[in-house]
Amino acid sequence: MTQRAAIIGGGAIGGGWAARFLLSGWDVRVFDTDPGVEHRITAVLANARRALPGLSDRPMPPEGTLSFHATLSETVDGADWIQESLPERLELKRKIFQKIQAHCPEDAVIASSTAGFTPTAVQGCATTPAQILVAHPADPVYLLPLVELGASPANPPELVARAKAVLEGLGMFPLHIKAEVDAHVAGRLQEAVWREALWLVRDGIATTEEIDESLRMGLGLRWAQMGLFETCRIAGGAAGMKDFIAQSGVALEQPHSRLTDVPDMTDDLAETIARQSDAQSGAHSIQQLQHIRDTNLVAILRALKWADWGAGAHLNRVDAAREGPEIDITRPIVTAEHAVPLDWTDYNGHMTESRYLQAFTEASDRLMEIIGADAEYIASGGSFFTVETHIRHLMEVKAGAEMRVETTCLAAEGKKMHLFHEVYSDETLLATGEQMLLHVSLETRRAAPPAPHIAEKLAEIAAAHAALPRPKGVGRAVGQGR
Amino acid sequence: MTQRAAIIGGGAIGGGWAARFLLSGWDVRVFDTDPGVEHRITAVLANARRALPGLSDRPMPPEGTLSFHATLSETVDGADWIQESLPERLELKRKIFQKIQAHCPEDAVIASSTAGFTPTAVQGCATTPAQILVAHPADPVYLLPLVELGASPANPPELVARAKAVLEGLGMFPLHIKAEVDAHVAGRLQEAVWREALWLVRDGIATTEEIDESLRMGLGLRWAQMGLFETCRIAGGAAGMKDFIAQSGVALEQPHSRLTDVPDMTDDLAETIARQSDAQSGAHSIQQLQHIRDTNLVAILRALKWADWGAGAHLNRVDAAREGPEIDITRPIVTAEHAVPLDWTDYNGHMTESRYLQAFTEASDRLMEIIGADAEYIASGGSFFTVETHIRHLMEVKAGAEMRVETTCLAAEGKKMHLFHEVYSDETLLATGEQMLLHVSLETRRAAPPAPHIAEKLAEIAAAHAALPRPKGVGRAVGQGR
Repeated sequence: MTQRAAIIGGGAIGGGWAARFLLSGWDVRVFDTDPGVEHRITAVLANARRALPGLSDRPMPPEGTLSFHATLSETVDGADWIQESLPERLELKRKIFQKIQAHCPEDAVIASSTAGFTPTAVQGCATTPAQILVAHPADPVYLLPLVELGASPANPPELVARAKAVLEGLGMFPLHIKAEVDAHVAGRLQEAVWREALWLVRDGIATTEEIDESLRMGLGLRWAQMGLFETCRIAGGAAGMKDFIAQSGVALEQPHSRLTDVPDMTDDLAETIARQSDAQSGAHSIQQLQHIRDTNLVAILRALKWADWGAGAHLNRVDAAREGPEIDITRPIVTAEHAVPLDWTDYNGHMTESRYLQAFTEASDRLMEIIGADAEYIASGGSFFTVETHIRHLMEVKAGAEMRVETTCLAAEGKKMHLFHEVYSDETLLATGEQMLLHVSLETRRAAPPAPHIAEKLAEIAAAHAALPRPKGVGRAVGQGR
Repeated sequence: MTQRAAIIGGGAIGGGWAARFLLSGWDVRVFDTDPGVEHRITAVLANARRALPGLSDRPMPPEGTLSFHATLSETVDGADWIQESLPERLELKRKIFQKIQAHCPEDAVIASSTAGFTPTAVQGCATTPAQILVAHPADPVYLLPLVELGASPANPPELVARAKAVLEGLGMFPLHIKAEVDAHVAGRLQEAVWREALWLVRDGIATTEEIDESLRMGLGLRWAQMGLFETCRIAGGAAGMKDFIAQSGVALEQPHSRLTDVPDMTDDLAETIARQSDAQSGAHSIQQLQHIRDTNLVAILRALKWADWGAGAHLNRVDAAREGPEIDITRPIVTAEHAVPLDWTDYNGHMTESRYLQAFTEASDRLMEIIGADAEYIASGGSFFTVETHIRHLMEVKAGAEMRVETTCLAAEGKKMHLFHEVYSDETLLATGEQMLLHVSLETRRAAPPAPHIAEKLAEIAAAHAALPRPKGVGRAVGQGR
């Protein structure tokens, strides 16, 4: 039977929860007295539908049914999970929980999205504190895996295990916070950064933009994949975590920040950290961790290059300032030249086949630029779409090796552009890619002739290349042999 | 003429600088009295060569020459840039700068990697303070763009501009810190998190692993692409940054963390932040920022799925727990089914051609699994390599749409596996991919027969599929027409 979630409070957080449940196949009932709630939830849902399903390599279940309800009793009736995401006012939350418990099933999980209060605090003097716990998500709730799960001694372990299973079923990463503490764990780290950042702005040391750059060009990229302690473990190197931590005590005694309430770095604390770090990361050597870190960073940075944002936008500007290969149309044109990126490899340890096509696509894009079909031309409504590709794999290549694509224009007639790409590492031919592209109107999405200046430049290249020997492997079908 | 860098201190940071300069075409001289320096620098260099060149889509210049020197005078002789990365002891740094200035060119830039001291502090009573500044990088120096550039009133603007240009030439992002302050900006944020994390461990609230998970499953992913304030701007929503910040004052008065020295949230401070945030992010609406954030997060999360690490490893576990499509070998086998991911699209607004090949590759991988050529079999030394692919693009598809690959086994003889993939969105055929794969020995990297149980299962599927109508488009060469 379809499970049912009740969402109490339909702001950004409540809306994110509604989207998570709905796209995971749950029926969702929403309660919020604000008349704008439908509009807000619909907007969050549109964002979630755009991003979440494509995060998975498996089909999502059919969406559940979304409904809005005027009374709390109707909203929580028959609910398996009730998620409260109201403003951070303890009395408000406690009152709502009392009302919810008057109408909801006895075995429903009631979870609070509270960023600040402990489970015991939100349970207050509820009729059945046992069914109330804390599930504090990270915004955007529909994309980020983190959810801090907080329980009090009043919650039976069975309920906590059931809550964990539900959250995992939503694709989330429930982090069970073992001790009750205001603001849990993530909130405390977030506030520490927030307060330091406020000091920096207040004292005129850095602007909001400069602070954000210091995170997204450096610290944030480290924390996004290894967090704080695993990063430190690498910095500690062969000397080991305990020595590194013990040394950090010196820095703690010279407070560089405005935050001066510092724990004593006792031997006990250094040993605790070293032991926990061993349990966490000890399966890998420092060198392995360095390789893992670098692979992660390259993959993230290249993902951000694709998005053209943050550190990725910076790297694209760096590339643009570097000279590309020289253009000489009297021979196959060098349309791409770089090293094989780390994230272009697969479990076989070599450059993976789809990245060859990516290289050919980038080579075709470069040829388009050369004939004048650049970003400006595309914005004006014309482009070339690939309709057909034939790839032959001849040799393997590994990450870091030099690679170079040479492109021959086999023919250019009307809307058609017929290209032959050869990818080399030094003098070794790795693969060939034969492609037929059609010029299209981006308005009608149908084939249309290119602008005259494009056609002319393309014809010039085709004529120059007609004089070259025909490359080996043109016109083959799969299985036809070499 | 090749430029020359002098690296003073060859630890992880000095080694990272050496690698950045060297791979950017500079000659590099290293000075470190530790006998292990060559070994250490060689190791950092190997890491850098593995990761950095493939970060760029342009060819890197030829590497410069690396040499180790026994005297400081020889190391800095004729240097254009001198980078000091010694332990954080002010007197040590000041003494070295005096010695360096006795031997280096007058117009060389002398930069300190200091994480803690201000430019004025490191200049001390140097002969020529004007040429000494702070360039504090983020580890790994050869990959992360961030470098904090600090100058004092003694540094002429011309020198600061020149330093910035050099750092940009190394592909770095120099963040000019306008005010002199201990630990600059990134270091202060890092320390704020570090101290709060130490409290959490000391008080037994969370382990090092739990703290790292709270960062890499949530906070770090936000900070890696938008930082702190831009993320808050979105949370503030339509109400605007000033209201959001003013409200945050309430939270500041209820300190949840151990860090209780909190700035007053005056009207002035709220307005300063709102104004700076407008200057930083005001070009985008909140909805645009939400889309940008979500696109970044999907791209980063999918990059981490490829790396099978952190939040990506979590998402892979989520996928594995979800059921894939049912296997029915009496018809074309559904080998992939999911939504088109956001990061599979290109500037034309549709799924990009190399991602079709990625879908076909994943479909072939799935078929391999079905016939028993799974991860365990591959680890035992056998695999299938694609030798040839022919792709026809028939229709476009956008991000978020459902897509499904159906695979027909056209033939299976000896080492050969001949497949035909069709990718559909609902009932619309988007593209076809014909592939020839060869079974190989991963030891010899040459064709070899598959294990008997694999050959048998494959023959069974080929026999079943021989009874199906032959798919349209098999055996075509590029340009042969439909």
